[in-house]
Amino acid sequence: MSNTYLLGIDVGGTAIKMALFTKEGPMIKKWSIPTDKREKGSYIPDDIERSVIKELENERITLEQLEGVGLGVPGFVDIENGTIEFAVNIGWRDFPLAKILSKSLSVPVFLDNDANLAAAGEYWKGAGRSAKDMICFTIGTGVGGGVIVGGNIVHGVEGMAGEVGHITVDPFRGKTCNCGKTGCLETVASATGMVSSVTEKRENKEYPTSILQSTSEEKLTTKEIFEAAARKDPLATAVIEEAALYIGLAAANACTLLNPERIVIGGGVSAAGEALLSPIQKYFQRYALEKVAKGTEFVIAELGNDAGVTGAAWLAAKSLGILPENH
Amino acid sequence: MSNTYLLGIDVGGTAIKMALFTKEGPMIKKWSIPTDKREKGSYIPDDIERSVIKELENERITLEQLEGVGLGVPGFVDIENGTIEFAVNIGWRDFPLAKILSKSLSVPVFLDNDANLAAAGEYWKGAGRSAKDMICFTIGTGVGGGVIVGGNIVHGVEGMAGEVGHITVDPFRGKTCNCGKTGCLETVASATGMVSSVTEKRENKEYPTSILQSTSEEKLTTKEIFEAAARKDPLATAVIEEAALYIGLAAANACTLLNPERIVIGGGVSAAGEALLSPIQKYFQRYALEKVAKGTEFVIAELGNDAGVTGAAWLAAKSLGILPENH
Repeated sequence: MSNTYLLGIDVGGTAIKMALFTKEGPMIKKWSIPTDKREKGSYIPDDIERSVIKELENERITLEQLEGVGLGVPGFVDIENGTIEFAVNIGWRDFPLAKILSKSLSVPVFLDNDANLAAAGEYWKGAGRSAKDMICFTIGTGVGGGVIVGGNIVHGVEGMAGEVGHITVDPFRGKTCNCGKTGCLETVASATGMVSSVTEKRENKEYPTSILQSTSEEKLTTKEIFEAAARKDPLATAVIEEAALYIGLAAANACTLLNPERIVIGGGVSAAGEALLSPIQKYFQRYALEKVAKGTEFVIAELGNDAGVTGAAWLAAKSLGILPENH
Repeated sequence: MSNTYLLGIDVGGTAIKMALFTKEGPMIKKWSIPTDKREKGSYIPDDIERSVIKELENERITLEQLEGVGLGVPGFVDIENGTIEFAVNIGWRDFPLAKILSKSLSVPVFLDNDANLAAAGEYWKGAGRSAKDMICFTIGTGVGGGVIVGGNIVHGVEGMAGEVGHITVDPFRGKTCNCGKTGCLETVASATGMVSSVTEKRENKEYPTSILQSTSEEKLTTKEIFEAAARKDPLATAVIEEAALYIGLAAANACTLLNPERIVIGGGVSAAGEALLSPIQKYFQRYALEKVAKGTEFVIAELGNDAGVTGAAWLAAKSLGILPENH
């Protein structure tokens, strides 16, 4: 049995997920605590420390047996200094979380953006495993992502790589995005974007026979939209086709640039499975070079909510140089 | 003085360029021989061997002092086996050029695609030097490119990475591309694409007062178009703006994915300099996230026809593990 362990932490707006892994990889325990956002998140380091110490004690694991901690946070991070530059959901600004935890737990702590670590988690143990290069599209409330090339997360010069939700897919007549630009992938392909497309088409009196015409605004979710499409509803089908077209286009262009072996589609909307994947692939094949399309496999993410903590543990193992084989 | 050398070879459709570098980097000599395409290019290995031996003799350098050879070819390559899968301009198919030369010259030979090596050349000693990650757009007869991440050329799973000319920029009404798709960047932003845009607008009787209306078809080059635009010709300006818009859009989306420090614009059309760069940057800023746009610098390629041989020598040095510093 393994004597040493890795800890993955995934800080979210409502919960902080944590999981313990052996050095060889298997997750042996996971738990979570609520995110205390009072006082600009200043109680969080102590909350994490207490929770980690308690759970390690329960497992009869000493702090000395913990080799490293990986930490994913929602926001802009300075990975070299382990500082969170800005996490709008939590209130952190220039917050040295990695340094604080490293001191209080006496263990090396490594930091990255949560979307990057979710991609890395899928790459290590999920839908991306054993792939040579992959791109992750996370389709949820917004559209996020991550890029893995040569076994490493691509960060870019400002740490902004993998912001696939802000790929411009409609340069001329696109909807306005939260980022201030227009025509971003997120405006049409996120859950929010798809629901707003339905609302827009209802307001324009398109598809009057659609069963979605009578759905109340607050009940309108992508689950309803995919259920209606399964019953061949024309409005639902049109909205899904539009989202799939733009995801397929963005993925094709990303693959023309990087030619990865795998595209992983994750996030809440990916629960739709083949009903989402199949139209995406149709448009991907239209917009990608034949040899590019041939080399790229589309898969639905496998780890769900565990992707973040898994990627965080991967980051710790990778940074400490103790990753087995070519991960 | 250096005792050992690297040789870069850049095989083109009309000429084979070669250059000798010291291990420390400076190019000490360059020359070229014509490309003999008879018998499906089967004379080429002997031609290269003879020329290399002769030039080394002239420099009083022995074959033993040659540490490695890098080789760029126009076509699909299997970099691991040093085989050219398919080079349509020359006639090679499954041609083991690296192995043949390695045997005849008794030296390690490393192979890659010419566009990738031109990008690597700019990264090593040209407009991309000291950049953290870069993307090269080569605007010539067609549009090619290369992607450098973490000091390595990105190849992808089928060796197709960096085919930026086939990024789909006009998914609905685009022109047909040589690749069989429609709406590729190459159809509007290459020299061929820009000339065809002028012809199209002439045929549609747009811009009747344009000075390009009277230019004979065979004299219509991008040089004429940029000269006319410098004189505020409306047709020329419209065609350049259109090309720049789509290059800016493709570059913005590539940077949203990778957030590189530098975009290098090369190829024959890049001779236009600021007249090309300035509108590209305008559209890049429209379509890129602010923080992405802030981190990316646009520069014109510096090495011209030497980019390929320089990148080939870089490949040899890199593969042999003798590259100084973080190149």
